[in-house]
Amino acid sequence: MLDQSTICAISTSPGVGAIAVIRLSGNESIEITDKVFRSPKTGKFLIGQAANSLHFGQLFYHDEVIDEVVVGLFKAPHSYTGEDIVEISCHGSVYIQQKILEVLISEGAQMALPGEFTQRAFLNGKMDLSQAEAVADVIASSNAAAHKLAINQMRGGFSKEIGALREQLLHFTAMVELELDFSEEEVEFANRTELQKLTEKIEVLLRNLKDSFQLGNAIKNGIPVAIIGETNVGKSTLLNALLNEDKAIVSDIHGTTRDVIEDVVNIHGTAFRFFDTAGIRETKDHIENLGIERSYSKLEQAAIVLLVVDTHNSFDLVKSRIDKIRGRMDTKQQLIIVANKIDTGLPTTIQQLEVLDLTDHEKLVFIAAKQKKNLDELIDYMIHAINIEAATQQDVIVTNARHYEILKNAHTAILRVLTGLEDGITGDFLAQDIRECLYYMAEITGEVGTEEVLGHIFKNFCIGK
Amino acid sequence: MLDQSTICAISTSPGVGAIAVIRLSGNESIEITDKVFRSPKTGKFLIGQAANSLHFGQLFYHDEVIDEVVVGLFKAPHSYTGEDIVEISCHGSVYIQQKILEVLISEGAQMALPGEFTQRAFLNGKMDLSQAEAVADVIASSNAAAHKLAINQMRGGFSKEIGALREQLLHFTAMVELELDFSEEEVEFANRTELQKLTEKIEVLLRNLKDSFQLGNAIKNGIPVAIIGETNVGKSTLLNALLNEDKAIVSDIHGTTRDVIEDVVNIHGTAFRFFDTAGIRETKDHIENLGIERSYSKLEQAAIVLLVVDTHNSFDLVKSRIDKIRGRMDTKQQLIIVANKIDTGLPTTIQQLEVLDLTDHEKLVFIAAKQKKNLDELIDYMIHAINIEAATQQDVIVTNARHYEILKNAHTAILRVLTGLEDGITGDFLAQDIRECLYYMAEITGEVGTEEVLGHIFKNFCIGK
Repeated sequence: MLDQSTICAISTSPGVGAIAVIRLSGNESIEITDKVFRSPKTGKFLIGQAANSLHFGQLFYHDEVIDEVVVGLFKAPHSYTGEDIVEISCHGSVYIQQKILEVLISEGAQMALPGEFTQRAFLNGKMDLSQAEAVADVIASSNAAAHKLAINQMRGGFSKEIGALREQLLHFTAMVELELDFSEEEVEFANRTELQKLTEKIEVLLRNLKDSFQLGNAIKNGIPVAIIGETNVGKSTLLNALLNEDKAIVSDIHGTTRDVIEDVVNIHGTAFRFFDTAGIRETKDHIENLGIERSYSKLEQAAIVLLVVDTHNSFDLVKSRIDKIRGRMDTKQQLIIVANKIDTGLPTTIQQLEVLDLTDHEKLVFIAAKQKKNLDELIDYMIHAINIEAATQQDVIVTNARHYEILKNAHTAILRVLTGLEDGITGDFLAQDIRECLYYMAEITGEVGTEEVLGHIFKNFCIGK
Repeated sequence: MLDQSTICAISTSPGVGAIAVIRLSGNESIEITDKVFRSPKTGKFLIGQAANSLHFGQLFYHDEVIDEVVVGLFKAPHSYTGEDIVEISCHGSVYIQQKILEVLISEGAQMALPGEFTQRAFLNGKMDLSQAEAVADVIASSNAAAHKLAINQMRGGFSKEIGALREQLLHFTAMVELELDFSEEEVEFANRTELQKLTEKIEVLLRNLKDSFQLGNAIKNGIPVAIIGETNVGKSTLLNALLNEDKAIVSDIHGTTRDVIEDVVNIHGTAFRFFDTAGIRETKDHIENLGIERSYSKLEQAAIVLLVVDTHNSFDLVKSRIDKIRGRMDTKQQLIIVANKIDTGLPTTIQQLEVLDLTDHEKLVFIAAKQKKNLDELIDYMIHAINIEAATQQDVIVTNARHYEILKNAHTAILRVLTGLEDGITGDFLAQDIRECLYYMAEITGEVGTEEVLGHIFKNFCIGK
């Protein structure tokens, strides 16, 4: 499975910079670099130099100096990939970067595939598959919450949880399989009541992990927020005010489309993904239902619904809008009723709104979007609507779609075990279901898996990582 | 003059990459980094670690892990800036890069200004000003020839030449000034004939350096090439064929405008800048002269003129076009007559062109632009028209507009010395002119200069270098 070649790639962001880093990994990393590197003063060679050391010198080719560089050496197994690694820090012109790659390749290195450094780290046992996957998430994270989840996963939080579950299941299956060896004697090493308890516990754990994906995915890609309300209630003004809150980081990211920049915004370290519900508006009562129906499928995707109402309208009208949306929402969604234009609103409407009964999943906030009044309170509600803080405190939230799919399978298997126990099925069937669940767990950490799965995972990495 | 603060900046290209490098320079670089760095296994501190060493660990802030990083240490005076330098190699997400900067700044580092690392290297005597300037050229170089000139200059080629000239001049002026001390005795320590010889030699050197700017500038920014000829002779087809030759590197450069991408092309490691001579065309004889006159000012900017003629036309017509352009050219320009459409051209025209008398500054090439026939021969002529190979072999070619301006002044001063010698002016006037010339030389290497000049030079650098 292990490729013995030495790979190289530009590891820093493409384009011109003050410096750029070109990385090699493999048995011949040091040897290959040494062929084209020389310290001008000491004539120093790289071969035989200590691990974790830095060396200034010139990179040349056919007696022509390409650049003055600093070379860092890491030696197997104490490196990112577990192999010998050389990092060449050069001046960041595109010409130099390409030329150095060219020279390294002419000396025997091969261009690295996307994610190949991390793939080698996995194959050399430096990290498990879920940690390797988290490396790509760490690099892609553009807000504090997503970053925190990715760093936790990279540092092994998810693997630890999965590992603990597997330990318990293994004990379980060992007992049941032991019974099979003595099947004619009808012994019961695995106490069925205890087994049932353990299975129930594992079922809850797997279910929680599986269910955390919705939140994990939202944190990773932005909490989906729908802003709805009639025309002229101030939806656009509100959206613009929120979008201006903190665009700095988002707009710095290369490769994000203009559409995405306008729709995803980091507010106090959390990404919110505002999506278009233009279809949900109430222009004329007689066509209203048609328009709303068409857009409710989108409303369902929202974790938070911001219903903007205009306090210029009568309370009855406002209340009817609120009730209409309430009827469409599910208990997992948060509704924030945004009563807008309070500076000039009808006092009676405002007074009656103030005493409106709210459920646990509802908040009411009075704002004046144009004057940016009370936006902080609204933002506070949005951030606390989804308990990001608490969520990112716990180590294990599933953010990876592959893990989610596997957890669903594992959960189905453990449910079968549970049903089997209740129905009193024989040990061999029980053992088979447990084995299946164990297999899925191992898929997450990469203890079992195919080349194909690996190829799919790493092809989405950037080159040089 | 020296700033005692510790500066920090992201030194790699902006945007997302596999890794990014954040650099600190200054007395407190190691101390500041140490406050937020810890090795998870050994609890290792950075303070007290050896120079030129690499350390794996975690960067954290308020107990929260920001990233797992590798930190490289360089110690004064053996570093790029001559100060203590720390290089933090982190995962290349924009979020992490900004967060680390934020943390370093909160611990006492300051954001570096553009070019501030290199400016400090200059102020700490690690390089002279012309070398520092070359660093920006090295980073901006997008083709082999410009890269080579910049690397040579960065390695001190230009400084060496200027230094040698200054040595000679200093000797010269010391002698003349010695005479002044004994002025009443009418001694002549500086043999006037030898002085004259030396001055002439220096004048030639300064003139050559000054004159090399035209070529140096062309290599740096692209050799200016005018493609001229009537409509329908195949100018556009030829231009497109040449533009397709090697756009890879040019199109990779960020920050170049689309206009520039279309006009500058790297052919076999040399940049050619094709410029618009759309005005030079011969539509109707009676308005021809007006149109041509208007565009000849542009023709003058070309180092190479590609005159495209159509072999479908009679030799007499073709010859008249050639003669018209010949009459407009200067002996420093290269004319390449490109006889196009030879696959279907008139045999008589081709035969007569084959025996056309050419000067040293002229070449003739038969091509079929549409079929890309013989383009290699044309490219070969273009590359050899300007002797880039020979030019880049010599160490000293002026590419920097500031140096060119100074050299012009120095040359004017040395010419005055020469005239003075011929006119037999007194030693004190002679000494003054020599001192002036010496002053200009020192401006190039930065031995004299103002904060203002430095500010102007370094403000065009990228941040992080």
